[in-house]
Amino acid sequence: MRLSRFFLPLLKENPADAEIVSHRLMLRAGMIRQHASGIYNWLPLGYRVLRRIEQIVREEQDAAGAQEILMPTIQSAELWRESGRYEDYGKEMLRIKDRHDRDMLYGPTHEEVVTDVFRKNIHSYRDLPKILYQIHWKFRDEVRPRFGVMRGREFLMKDAYSFDLDMEAARRSYNRMFVAYLRTFRRMGLTAIPMAADSGPIGGDMSHEFIILADTGESAVFCHKALLEKPTPESVNYEGDLQPVVDEWTSLYAATDEKHTENHGVAPEDLISARGIEVGHIFNFGLKYSRPMDAVVQTVSDGTIPVQMGSYGIGVSRLVGAIIEASHDDAGIIWPDSVAPFHVGLINLKAGDVETDRVCAEIDARLSAAGVDVLYDDTQERPGAKFATMDLIGLPWQLIVGPRGLEKGVVELKRRATGERYEVSMETAIDRLIAPSSGS
Amino acid sequence: MRLSRFFLPLLKENPADAEIVSHRLMLRAGMIRQHASGIYNWLPLGYRVLRRIEQIVREEQDAAGAQEILMPTIQSAELWRESGRYEDYGKEMLRIKDRHDRDMLYGPTHEEVVTDVFRKNIHSYRDLPKILYQIHWKFRDEVRPRFGVMRGREFLMKDAYSFDLDMEAARRSYNRMFVAYLRTFRRMGLTAIPMAADSGPIGGDMSHEFIILADTGESAVFCHKALLEKPTPESVNYEGDLQPVVDEWTSLYAATDEKHTENHGVAPEDLISARGIEVGHIFNFGLKYSRPMDAVVQTVSDGTIPVQMGSYGIGVSRLVGAIIEASHDDAGIIWPDSVAPFHVGLINLKAGDVETDRVCAEIDARLSAAGVDVLYDDTQERPGAKFATMDLIGLPWQLIVGPRGLEKGVVELKRRATGERYEVSMETAIDRLIAPSSGS
Repeated sequence: MRLSRFFLPLLKENPADAEIVSHRLMLRAGMIRQHASGIYNWLPLGYRVLRRIEQIVREEQDAAGAQEILMPTIQSAELWRESGRYEDYGKEMLRIKDRHDRDMLYGPTHEEVVTDVFRKNIHSYRDLPKILYQIHWKFRDEVRPRFGVMRGREFLMKDAYSFDLDMEAARRSYNRMFVAYLRTFRRMGLTAIPMAADSGPIGGDMSHEFIILADTGESAVFCHKALLEKPTPESVNYEGDLQPVVDEWTSLYAATDEKHTENHGVAPEDLISARGIEVGHIFNFGLKYSRPMDAVVQTVSDGTIPVQMGSYGIGVSRLVGAIIEASHDDAGIIWPDSVAPFHVGLINLKAGDVETDRVCAEIDARLSAAGVDVLYDDTQERPGAKFATMDLIGLPWQLIVGPRGLEKGVVELKRRATGERYEVSMETAIDRLIAPSSGS
Repeated sequence: MRLSRFFLPLLKENPADAEIVSHRLMLRAGMIRQHASGIYNWLPLGYRVLRRIEQIVREEQDAAGAQEILMPTIQSAELWRESGRYEDYGKEMLRIKDRHDRDMLYGPTHEEVVTDVFRKNIHSYRDLPKILYQIHWKFRDEVRPRFGVMRGREFLMKDAYSFDLDMEAARRSYNRMFVAYLRTFRRMGLTAIPMAADSGPIGGDMSHEFIILADTGESAVFCHKALLEKPTPESVNYEGDLQPVVDEWTSLYAATDEKHTENHGVAPEDLISARGIEVGHIFNFGLKYSRPMDAVVQTVSDGTIPVQMGSYGIGVSRLVGAIIEASHDDAGIIWPDSVAPFHVGLINLKAGDVETDRVCAEIDARLSAAGVDVLYDDTQERPGAKFATMDLIGLPWQLIVGPRGLEKGVVELKRRATGERYEVSMETAIDRLIAPSSGS
């Protein structure tokens, strides 16, 4: 993609209304523009990142055996009356009347709808277990939306729902999602720590929030520092017993503010007290919806029992902000390779110079043909402005091509994260950027 | 994917409320389930098809130089008051009050929002031309939703918007989309004919509906029969002059009911009069939004002028139904390879038989490793029921493995579209299904 054509409206100044760094950087880098309070347009750069994150989430859900569906955004209020939540939900629910004066709503979550899908289509223990998920837009009418996409009103979420015959099977589904979450966030370059969380009246130990540490986090969290260094499982057999992995992670103390106690048994020098951003939440809610909504399955002995359910959320659009909170410097964003909107920013230091243009066009063509996403700055801007733009938008690699280097037979390769620079031949640069180890 | 695990709730009977074949087959094949009138859940089989169609649309939009963004579903009414459409739009618009009593709406279309994005971020002729598009859910509160996803209330659409300095440039953008549409529908196995359509008060010749012929089509259409056989451009240089391609397609008579006249000059034996399904609509609307909303750009001579705009829609969720209308038989759906939810249905005729299970598992593993999507029927159903299921869900290939064939060293390969069957060795079957010419 040529920058001269790319729709990338940058802001020179920090927007006054953006309180946290990810919001500022997303606006400055032309990733999003606000439409209304807590409602955003995703511009090409931002939308590319959102889709990369979405795809990682999807791949890890699929690998864990979850099956993708899509439920509607506009729901009938009837189901919410059955579950008893219609009146309870409060003003965060966007309530709507359709033209026939029927009560509808914009789904803030989908337990009712998925339970309805289940009860109408699955009737036997033989069809269990099942995990269904979707990646879709939800709406919660927050009183005071803020922090850009971190707490918007319209937001993209992955929500999965498990259906099991009994609690033992429900724990297996829970463990699958637990492990899938560890892998999902790690693939995005995040250290997300599962923390015991409040599970409401259902209780039990099957409720964890996945939290990344960041100064701008909305809540206080506490954990053993060893959790920050713990490796996530490289390859997982989701058919096997995942309890040991879960035990290993949950044996060390980690708790959100709500669940924090003084009896944690962690030595003071090992306890981290920090601010955290919640990026995922998994929990088992047993029969909370299946009982009132009559979602039952036939058992082996031919009776029927309500199905055990759990729900598993990831804030997909929120993650765009969360990753920036975790990965930036004074000059701008530093994208992890796995979610970067482009892999390489190709900078032409003298657009219009025949030889420089020719080399840049060749590099662009060869990298693109190899499946490497390139943003080619072919504009007439000064070199300083070009460097600042590339640092701001945070592509993992910059490849800088100018007449002086070409006279010596070299181009310059810069790694955004470390600032390291290498003078190399064009061929070496291309090889390096195509190599899988470069993270593309 | 093993069928024993796959969430595929089939219906044996034709649902009473489904009037047209695509609606019946989508329900019977477990692709969708109605949530409320005109609002559907997409189950795994249906969602896979929807995503394939979406991806073809995206690739062809990208190839044509359009850039993907995402605008919100919930919009502020303010912009619609600026354009003058808020009061005019009528009851199809789902109007909403948020918790602060602000007028919002669920976008039935996005001209106002995209014009607002444009005017706030693009200010110079140097940044033109631009084509921005999104693939997103919209809501139109139809009085009487029907035909399943063909005329739903919540539906997935690709909508693109072009921004140009003058009419000459606007025509170039229009032509890009015209050609991209020809390619898009052809890739899905459809013959979509561009037909002169009513363009409203703006007029001109830049308004075409893309229509596929089907008995269940909602409107009468007329065209020269040569259009049905016309090849679409194989490879296109979108930087070049596309007018000859557009001229070639528009020189033959084709018109929707609204635009049909008796002065068409087509010999009676060459004129087709049929029913049609609209799958796309492109039109230039000039300054209709840019003028009232003050979306202007600086010109070379340093004045400002409102930008020329066009809009380009494809009914993505509707296409799932439209493709079925165009491609089915009495036994079920016949998916074109490019949009099929799986490429191969692998049928184990005797699940539980050690050798048959072993061979099926090997085929499944090898095809999957080669990137071929397999739905493996490993259930205990009778062969007849298995064949009926595979015919119903319409995967392009069936690979049938049973003990009797294996004794002879063969498996059976069946092409769904033609019913052709081949007895071949397992190796030959695998090679054939992996080969690019098998359409995967």
